[in-house]
Amino acid sequence: MGNGLFLTIEGGEGSGKTTLIDGIAKALQGHGKTVLFTREPGGIPIAEQIRGIVLDNENTAMDARTEALLYAAARRQHLVEKILPALNRGEIVVCDRFIDSSLAYQGYARGLGIEEVRSINAFAIGNHMPALTVWLDVSPESGLARIHAGEGREINRLDLEGLAFHKAVREGYRQLMAAEPDRIMRIDAEQSPEIVLKDVLAILNARI
Amino acid sequence: MGNGLFLTIEGGEGSGKTTLIDGIAKALQGHGKTVLFTREPGGIPIAEQIRGIVLDNENTAMDARTEALLYAAARRQHLVEKILPALNRGEIVVCDRFIDSSLAYQGYARGLGIEEVRSINAFAIGNHMPALTVWLDVSPESGLARIHAGEGREINRLDLEGLAFHKAVREGYRQLMAAEPDRIMRIDAEQSPEIVLKDVLAILNARI
Repeated sequence: MGNGLFLTIEGGEGSGKTTLIDGIAKALQGHGKTVLFTREPGGIPIAEQIRGIVLDNENTAMDARTEALLYAAARRQHLVEKILPALNRGEIVVCDRFIDSSLAYQGYARGLGIEEVRSINAFAIGNHMPALTVWLDVSPESGLARIHAGEGREINRLDLEGLAFHKAVREGYRQLMAAEPDRIMRIDAEQSPEIVLKDVLAILNARI
Repeated sequence: MGNGLFLTIEGGEGSGKTTLIDGIAKALQGHGKTVLFTREPGGIPIAEQIRGIVLDNENTAMDARTEALLYAAARRQHLVEKILPALNRGEIVVCDRFIDSSLAYQGYARGLGIEEVRSINAFAIGNHMPALTVWLDVSPESGLARIHAGEGREINRLDLEGLAFHKAVREGYRQLMAAEPDRIMRIDAEQSPEIVLKDVLAILNARI
Protein backbone atom coordinates (compact mmCIF):
# COMPACT_ATOMS: atom_id res chain seq x y z
CA MET A 1 0.00 0.00 0.00
CA GLY A 2 2.90 2.44 -0.55
CA ASN A 3 3.29 4.79 2.42
CA GLY A 4 -0.34 5.87 2.46
CA LEU A 5 -2.84 5.43 5.27
CA PHE A 6 -6.33 4.09 4.66
CA LEU A 7 -9.01 5.34 7.07
CA THR A 8 -12.76 4.74 6.94
CA ILE A 9 -15.59 6.49 8.75
CA GLU A 10 -18.65 4.46 9.71
CA GLY A 11 -21.91 5.03 11.55
CA GLY A 12 -25.69 5.06 11.33
CA GLU A 13 -27.98 7.80 10.03
CA GLY A 14 -27.43 11.17 11.72
CA SER A 15 -24.20 10.06 13.38
CA GLY A 16 -22.36 13.11 12.02
CA LYS A 17 -20.04 11.53 9.45
CA THR A 18 -20.20 14.49 7.04
CA THR A 19 -19.56 17.07 9.75
CA LEU A 20 -16.65 15.02 11.07
CA ILE A 21 -15.09 14.63 7.62
CA ASP A 22 -15.32 18.38 7.01
CA GLY A 23 -13.56 18.90 10.34
CA ILE A 24 -10.83 16.40 9.52
CA ALA A 25 -10.26 18.08 6.15
CA LYS A 26 -9.78 21.50 7.79
CA ALA A 27 -7.55 20.11 10.54
CA LEU A 28 -5.28 18.24 8.14
CA GLN A 29 -4.78 21.27 5.88
CA GLY A 30 -1.18 22.35 6.18
CA HIS A 31 -0.24 19.06 7.80
CA GLY A 32 2.09 18.41 4.88
CA LYS A 33 0.14 15.32 3.84
CA THR A 34 -2.17 15.01 0.84
CA VAL A 35 -5.56 13.70 1.91
CA LEU A 36 -8.11 12.13 -0.44
CA PHE A 37 -11.71 12.18 0.79
CA THR A 38 -13.98 9.79 -1.05
CA ARG A 39 -17.11 7.68 -0.82
CA GLU A 40 -18.41 4.94 -3.09
CA PRO A 41 -19.01 4.99 -6.03
CA GLY A 42 -16.63 7.95 -6.03
CA GLY A 43 -17.06 9.15 -9.60
CA ILE A 44 -15.56 5.93 -11.01
CA PRO A 45 -17.66 5.23 -14.12
CA ILE A 46 -17.93 1.44 -13.68
CA ALA A 47 -18.81 1.82 -9.98
CA GLU A 48 -21.35 4.53 -10.84
CA GLN A 49 -22.98 2.23 -13.42
CA ILE A 50 -23.21 -0.56 -10.85
CA ARG A 51 -24.67 1.79 -8.23
CA GLY A 52 -27.16 2.96 -10.85
CA ILE A 53 -28.56 -0.58 -11.09
CA VAL A 54 -28.86 -0.82 -7.28
CA LEU A 55 -30.65 2.51 -6.98
CA ASP A 56 -32.96 2.14 -10.02
CA ASN A 57 -36.51 2.30 -8.65
CA GLU A 58 -37.65 0.02 -11.47
CA ASN A 59 -35.55 -2.83 -10.08
CA THR A 60 -38.05 -3.87 -7.42
CA ALA A 61 -37.28 -7.56 -8.05
CA MET A 62 -33.69 -7.22 -6.88
CA ASP A 63 -32.68 -9.98 -4.50
CA ALA A 64 -30.77 -9.03 -1.33
CA ARG A 65 -27.80 -11.21 -2.33
CA THR A 66 -27.67 -9.71 -5.82
CA GLU A 67 -27.56 -6.29 -4.17
CA ALA A 68 -24.75 -7.34 -1.80
CA LEU A 69 -22.71 -8.68 -4.74
CA LEU A 70 -23.25 -5.42 -6.66
CA TYR A 71 -22.09 -3.35 -3.68
CA ALA A 72 -18.98 -5.55 -3.43
CA ALA A 73 -18.33 -5.15 -7.19
CA ALA A 74 -18.61 -1.34 -7.01
CA ARG A 75 -16.37 -1.37 -3.93
CA ARG A 76 -13.69 -3.35 -5.78
CA GLN A 77 -13.63 -0.96 -8.71
CA HIS A 78 -13.56 2.14 -6.49
CA LEU A 79 -10.70 0.57 -4.53
CA VAL A 80 -8.67 -0.33 -7.63
CA GLU A 81 -9.20 2.88 -9.56
CA LYS A 82 -9.18 5.48 -6.79
CA ILE A 83 -8.10 4.32 -3.33
CA LEU A 84 -5.09 2.15 -4.17
CA PRO A 85 -3.48 4.68 -6.57
CA ALA A 86 -3.74 7.35 -3.85
CA LEU A 87 -2.25 5.04 -1.21
CA ASN A 88 0.56 4.14 -3.61
CA ARG A 89 1.29 7.87 -3.97
CA GLY A 90 1.65 7.96 -0.18
CA GLU A 91 -1.58 9.86 0.48
CA ILE A 92 -3.99 9.58 3.38
CA VAL A 93 -7.33 8.23 2.13
CA VAL A 94 -10.46 8.91 4.18
CA CYS A 95 -13.44 6.92 2.88
CA ASP A 96 -17.00 7.66 4.03
CA ARG A 97 -18.39 4.12 4.55
CA PHE A 98 -16.65 0.96 3.32
CA ILE A 99 -16.80 -2.78 4.08
CA ASP A 100 -18.25 -2.36 7.60
CA SER A 101 -21.37 -0.68 6.22
CA SER A 102 -22.12 -3.80 4.16
CA LEU A 103 -21.43 -6.02 7.17
CA ALA A 104 -23.61 -4.00 9.57
CA TYR A 105 -26.49 -3.13 7.21
CA GLN A 106 -26.75 -6.15 4.92
CA GLY A 107 -24.91 -8.79 6.92
CA TYR A 108 -26.45 -8.11 10.32
CA ALA A 109 -29.50 -5.82 10.04
CA ARG A 110 -30.89 -7.34 6.80
CA GLY A 111 -30.05 -10.82 8.04
CA LEU A 112 -27.76 -12.11 5.27
CA GLY A 113 -25.15 -12.98 7.89
CA ILE A 114 -21.99 -11.03 8.74
CA GLU A 115 -19.65 -13.89 7.77
CA GLU A 116 -21.41 -14.53 4.46
CA VAL A 117 -21.25 -10.87 3.45
CA ARG A 118 -17.66 -10.74 4.70
CA SER A 119 -16.70 -13.56 2.32
CA ILE A 120 -17.70 -11.66 -0.84
CA ASN A 121 -16.14 -8.46 0.47
CA ALA A 122 -12.92 -10.30 1.30
CA PHE A 123 -12.85 -11.32 -2.37
CA ALA A 124 -13.46 -7.68 -3.38
CA ILE A 125 -10.91 -6.09 -1.06
CA GLY A 126 -8.15 -8.68 -0.87
CA ASN A 127 -5.59 -7.58 1.73
CA HIS A 128 -6.51 -3.89 1.47
CA MET A 129 -8.51 -3.54 4.67
CA PRO A 130 -8.65 -0.07 6.26
CA ALA A 131 -5.81 0.49 8.72
CA LEU A 132 -8.22 2.32 10.99
CA THR A 133 -12.00 2.68 11.11
CA VAL A 134 -13.80 5.33 13.15
CA TRP A 135 -17.28 4.22 14.22
CA LEU A 136 -19.47 7.17 15.18
CA ASP A 137 -21.82 5.52 17.63
CA VAL A 138 -25.09 7.33 18.24
CA SER A 139 -28.43 5.98 19.43
CA PRO A 140 -30.95 5.64 16.57
CA GLU A 141 -33.26 8.00 18.47
CA SER A 142 -30.62 10.74 18.63
CA GLY A 143 -29.58 10.17 15.02
CA LEU A 144 -33.14 10.41 13.72
CA ALA A 145 -33.82 13.48 15.85
CA ARG A 146 -30.77 15.21 14.33
CA ILE A 147 -31.83 14.40 10.78
CA HIS A 148 -35.31 15.71 11.43
CA ALA A 149 -34.06 18.84 13.17
CA GLY A 150 -32.12 19.56 9.98
CA GLU A 151 -35.27 19.00 7.96
CA GLY A 152 -37.34 21.12 10.35
CA ARG A 153 -39.80 18.31 11.19
CA GLU A 154 -40.52 15.91 14.03
CA ILE A 155 -40.14 12.11 14.17
CA ASN A 156 -43.22 10.42 12.73
CA ARG A 157 -44.74 6.94 12.82
CA LEU A 158 -42.82 5.84 9.72
CA ASP A 159 -39.52 6.80 11.28
CA LEU A 160 -40.33 4.81 14.39
CA GLU A 161 -41.10 1.72 12.32
CA GLY A 162 -37.56 1.99 10.98
CA LEU A 163 -36.17 2.25 14.48
CA ALA A 164 -35.80 -1.52 14.92
CA PHE A 165 -33.69 -1.65 11.76
CA HIS A 166 -31.43 1.18 12.89
CA LYS A 167 -31.04 -0.49 16.27
CA ALA A 168 -29.98 -3.64 14.46
CA VAL A 169 -27.42 -1.67 12.44
CA ARG A 170 -25.97 -0.33 15.68
CA GLU A 171 -25.79 -3.83 17.16
CA GLY A 172 -24.05 -4.97 13.94
CA TYR A 173 -21.37 -2.29 14.32
CA ARG A 174 -21.01 -3.25 17.99
CA GLN A 175 -20.27 -6.86 17.05
CA LEU A 176 -17.80 -5.80 14.36
CA MET A 177 -15.93 -3.66 16.86
CA ALA A 178 -15.89 -6.49 19.40
CA ALA A 179 -14.32 -8.76 16.77
CA GLU A 180 -11.70 -6.21 15.62
CA PRO A 181 -11.03 -3.82 18.51
CA ASP A 182 -7.60 -2.85 17.17
CA ARG A 183 -9.00 -1.62 13.86
CA ILE A 184 -12.43 -0.24 14.77
CA MET A 185 -12.43 2.70 17.20
CA ARG A 186 -15.78 3.60 18.76
CA ILE A 187 -16.38 7.31 19.24
CA ASP A 188 -19.32 8.44 21.38
CA ALA A 189 -21.19 10.52 18.81
CA GLU A 190 -23.79 11.70 21.33
CA GLN A 191 -21.12 14.25 22.21
CA SER A 192 -20.92 17.65 20.49
CA PRO A 193 -19.34 17.72 16.99
CA GLU A 194 -16.39 19.65 18.43
CA ILE A 195 -15.62 16.95 21.00
CA VAL A 196 -16.10 14.18 18.43
CA LEU A 197 -13.61 15.90 16.11
CA LYS A 198 -11.13 16.37 18.94
CA ASP A 199 -11.35 12.68 19.91
CA VAL A 200 -10.88 11.56 16.31
CA LEU A 201 -7.94 13.91 15.66
CA ALA A 202 -6.21 12.58 18.78
CA ILE A 203 -6.47 9.07 17.33
CA LEU A 204 -5.36 10.19 13.87
CA ASN A 205 -2.38 12.15 15.16
CA ALA A 206 -1.18 9.05 16.94
CA ARG A 207 -1.28 7.14 13.62
CA ILE A 208 -0.02 9.65 11.06
CA MET B 1 -36.37 -27.23 -4.99
CA GLY B 2 -39.88 -28.58 -5.59
CA ASN B 3 -39.80 -31.67 -7.77
CA GLY B 4 -37.78 -30.10 -10.56
CA LEU B 5 -34.39 -31.15 -11.85
CA PHE B 6 -31.59 -28.66 -12.41
CA LEU B 7 -29.09 -29.55 -15.16
CA THR B 8 -26.25 -27.49 -16.55
CA ILE B 9 -24.22 -27.88 -19.73
CA GLU B 10 -20.58 -26.81 -19.70
CA GLY B 11 -17.66 -26.83 -22.10
CA GLY B 12 -15.16 -24.76 -24.02
CA GLU B 13 -15.60 -22.96 -27.33
CA GLY B 14 -16.79 -25.22 -30.15
CA SER B 15 -17.63 -28.08 -27.79
CA GLY B 16 -21.14 -28.38 -29.27
CA LYS B 17 -23.29 -27.10 -26.39
CA THR B 18 -25.90 -25.48 -28.65
CA THR B 19 -26.23 -28.54 -30.89
CA LEU B 20 -26.57 -30.77 -27.83
CA ILE B 21 -29.22 -28.57 -26.24
CA ASP B 22 -31.26 -28.58 -29.46
CA GLY B 23 -31.03 -32.36 -29.46
CA ILE B 24 -32.11 -32.62 -25.81
CA ALA B 25 -35.07 -30.34 -26.50
CA LYS B 26 -36.29 -32.55 -29.38
CA ALA B 27 -35.73 -35.77 -27.43
CA LEU B 28 -37.61 -34.55 -24.35
CA GLN B 29 -40.62 -33.40 -26.38
CA GLY B 30 -43.53 -35.62 -25.50
CA HIS B 31 -41.71 -36.92 -22.45
CA GLY B 32 -44.52 -35.50 -20.29
CA LYS B 33 -42.16 -33.12 -18.51
CA THR B 34 -41.93 -29.37 -19.04
CA VAL B 35 -38.37 -28.35 -19.81
CA LEU B 36 -36.99 -24.82 -19.49
CA PHE B 37 -33.88 -24.07 -21.52
CA THR B 38 -32.06 -20.96 -20.41
CA ARG B 39 -28.71 -19.21 -20.26
CA GLU B 40 -27.57 -16.18 -18.31
CA PRO B 41 -28.69 -13.40 -18.26
CA GLY B 42 -31.84 -15.11 -19.55
CA GLY B 43 -33.98 -12.06 -20.32
CA ILE B 44 -34.12 -11.07 -16.64
CA PRO B 45 -33.90 -7.25 -16.71
CA ILE B 46 -31.59 -6.84 -13.71
CA ALA B 47 -29.27 -9.60 -14.96
CA GLU B 48 -29.30 -8.07 -18.46
CA GLN B 49 -28.33 -4.67 -17.01
CA ILE B 50 -25.46 -6.26 -15.08
CA ARG B 51 -24.27 -8.14 -18.17
CA GLY B 52 -24.46 -4.88 -20.10
CA ILE B 53 -21.83 -3.37 -17.78
CA VAL B 54 -19.55 -6.40 -18.24
CA LEU B 55 -19.82 -6.34 -22.03
CA ASP B 56 -19.58 -2.55 -22.49
CA ASN B 57 -16.49 -1.96 -24.62
CA GLU B 58 -15.99 1.41 -22.90
CA ASN B 59 -15.34 -0.33 -19.58
CA THR B 60 -11.69 -1.16 -20.33
CA ALA B 61 -10.70 -0.38 -16.72
CA MET B 62 -12.77 -3.24 -15.33
CA ASP B 63 -10.87 -5.28 -12.77
CA ALA B 64 -11.05 -9.10 -13.03
CA ARG B 65 -12.54 -9.36 -9.53
CA THR B 66 -15.18 -6.72 -10.28
CA GLU B 67 -16.12 -8.76 -13.34
CA ALA B 68 -16.34 -12.00 -11.32
CA LEU B 69 -18.61 -10.29 -8.76
CA LEU B 70 -20.83 -8.95 -11.54
CA TYR B 71 -21.16 -12.43 -13.10
CA ALA B 72 -22.10 -13.81 -9.67
CA ALA B 73 -24.68 -11.02 -9.18
CA ALA B 74 -26.29 -11.68 -12.57
CA ARG B 75 -26.26 -15.42 -11.79
CA ARG B 76 -28.09 -14.84 -8.50
CA GLN B 77 -30.83 -12.79 -10.11
CA HIS B 78 -31.31 -15.24 -13.00
CA LEU B 79 -31.51 -18.08 -10.46
CA VAL B 80 -34.05 -16.31 -8.23
CA GLU B 81 -36.28 -14.96 -10.98
CA LYS B 82 -36.18 -17.75 -13.53
CA ILE B 83 -34.59 -21.04 -12.46
CA LEU B 84 -36.03 -21.46 -8.96
CA PRO B 85 -39.64 -20.67 -9.96
CA ALA B 86 -39.41 -23.30 -12.73
CA LEU B 87 -37.92 -25.89 -10.34
CA ASN B 88 -40.66 -25.10 -7.84
CA ARG B 89 -43.23 -25.82 -10.58
CA GLY B 90 -41.58 -29.23 -10.98
CA GLU B 91 -39.93 -28.48 -14.32
CA ILE B 92 -36.63 -29.68 -15.71
CA VAL B 93 -34.26 -26.73 -16.11
CA VAL B 94 -31.36 -27.01 -18.56
CA CYS B 95 -28.96 -24.07 -18.22
CA ASP B 96 -26.26 -23.38 -20.83
CA ARG B 97 -23.25 -22.54 -18.61
CA PHE B 98 -23.52 -21.82 -14.86
CA ILE B 99 -21.15 -21.75 -11.88
CA ASP B 100 -18.54 -24.07 -13.44
CA SER B 101 -17.91 -21.61 -16.29
CA SER B 102 -16.89 -18.96 -13.74
CA LEU B 103 -14.72 -21.48 -11.89
CA ALA B 104 -12.98 -22.76 -15.05
CA TYR B 105 -12.62 -19.47 -16.95
CA GLN B 106 -12.12 -16.87 -14.20
CA GLY B 107 -11.03 -19.03 -11.29
CA TYR B 108 -8.56 -21.28 -13.13
CA ALA B 109 -7.71 -19.89 -16.59
CA ARG B 110 -7.66 -16.19 -15.56
CA GLY B 111 -5.87 -17.08 -12.35
CA LEU B 112 -8.24 -15.65 -9.71
CA GLY B 113 -8.28 -19.04 -7.98
CA ILE B 114 -11.02 -21.68 -8.14
CA GLU B 115 -11.72 -21.55 -4.39
CA GLU B 116 -11.86 -17.74 -4.32
CA VAL B 117 -14.33 -17.59 -7.21
CA ARG B 118 -16.26 -20.47 -5.65
CA SER B 119 -16.73 -18.46 -2.44
CA ILE B 120 -18.60 -15.61 -4.15
CA ASN B 121 -20.62 -18.05 -6.24
CA ALA B 122 -21.53 -20.05 -3.14
CA PHE B 123 -22.93 -16.79 -1.75
CA ALA B 124 -24.86 -16.26 -5.01
CA ILE B 125 -26.25 -19.77 -5.35
CA GLY B 126 -26.78 -20.87 -1.77
CA ASN B 127 -27.78 -24.54 -1.75
CA HIS B 128 -29.10 -24.50 -5.32
CA MET B 129 -26.26 -26.28 -7.05
CA PRO B 130 -27.07 -28.14 -10.27
CA ALA B 131 -28.05 -31.74 -9.63
CA LEU B 132 -26.11 -32.77 -12.73
CA THR B 133 -23.61 -31.05 -14.98
CA VAL B 134 -22.63 -32.32 -18.40
CA TRP B 135 -19.11 -31.28 -19.40
CA LEU B 136 -18.56 -31.49 -23.15
CA ASP B 137 -14.83 -32.11 -23.30
CA VAL B 138 -13.15 -31.27 -26.57
CA SER B 139 -9.54 -30.35 -27.30
CA PRO B 140 -9.10 -26.62 -27.92
CA GLU B 141 -7.68 -27.47 -31.35
CA SER B 142 -10.82 -29.38 -32.35
CA GLY B 143 -13.12 -26.75 -30.85
CA LEU B 144 -11.42 -23.89 -32.67
CA ALA B 145 -11.39 -25.87 -35.92
CA ARG B 146 -15.15 -26.42 -35.65
CA ILE B 147 -15.86 -22.75 -35.01
CA HIS B 148 -13.76 -21.73 -37.98
CA ALA B 149 -15.30 -24.34 -40.23
CA GLY B 150 -18.68 -22.78 -39.39
CA GLU B 151 -17.29 -19.37 -40.25
CA GLY B 152 -15.67 -20.69 -43.42
CA ARG B 153 -12.14 -19.67 -42.41
CA GLU B 154 -8.96 -21.26 -41.16
CA ILE B 155 -7.27 -20.95 -37.76
CA ASN B 156 -5.04 -17.87 -37.69
CA ARG B 157 -2.19 -16.61 -35.56
CA LEU B 158 -4.54 -14.77 -33.18
CA ASP B 159 -6.51 -17.96 -32.51
CA LEU B 160 -3.33 -19.82 -31.70
CA GLU B 161 -2.29 -17.18 -29.19
CA GLY B 162 -5.57 -17.91 -27.41
CA LEU B 163 -4.85 -21.62 -27.42
CA ALA B 164 -2.99 -21.55 -24.10
CA PHE B 165 -6.02 -19.92 -22.49
CA HIS B 166 -8.43 -22.51 -23.89
CA LYS B 167 -6.12 -25.29 -22.73
CA ALA B 168 -6.21 -23.76 -19.25
CA VAL B 169 -10.02 -23.66 -19.36
CA ARG B 170 -10.03 -27.38 -20.19
CA GLU B 171 -7.65 -28.11 -17.31
CA GLY B 172 -9.95 -26.08 -15.03
CA TYR B 173 -12.95 -28.21 -15.99
CA ARG B 174 -10.83 -31.33 -15.47
CA GLN B 175 -10.02 -30.28 -11.92
CA LEU B 176 -13.64 -29.42 -11.18
CA MET B 177 -14.75 -32.86 -12.39
CA ALA B 178 -12.05 -34.54 -10.29
CA ALA B 179 -13.38 -32.71 -7.22
CA GLU B 180 -17.06 -33.50 -7.87
CA PRO B 181 -17.23 -36.69 -9.94
CA ASP B 182 -20.81 -37.44 -8.84
CA ARG B 183 -22.14 -34.13 -10.16
CA ILE B 184 -19.97 -33.44 -13.20
CA MET B 185 -20.18 -35.97 -16.02
CA ARG B 186 -17.51 -35.77 -18.72
CA ILE B 187 -18.69 -36.49 -22.24
CA ASP B 188 -16.11 -37.03 -24.98
CA ALA B 189 -17.18 -34.27 -27.36
CA GLU B 190 -14.67 -35.29 -30.02
CA GLN B 191 -17.33 -37.82 -30.97
CA SER B 192 -20.07 -37.04 -33.51
CA PRO B 193 -22.98 -34.87 -32.29
CA GLU B 194 -25.29 -37.91 -32.61
CA ILE B 195 -23.15 -40.04 -30.27
CA VAL B 196 -22.74 -37.14 -27.82
CA LEU B 197 -26.53 -36.70 -27.69
CA LYS B 198 -27.04 -40.45 -27.20
CA ASP B 199 -24.54 -40.51 -24.31
CA VAL B 200 -26.15 -37.51 -22.64
CA LEU B 201 -29.70 -38.83 -23.04
CA ALA B 202 -28.65 -42.12 -21.44
CA ILE B 203 -27.45 -40.16 -18.41
CA LEU B 204 -30.57 -37.98 -18.33
CA ASN B 205 -32.95 -40.91 -18.64
CA ALA B 206 -31.34 -42.49 -15.62
CA ARG B 207 -32.04 -39.30 -13.63
CA ILE B 208 -35.49 -38.19 -14.78
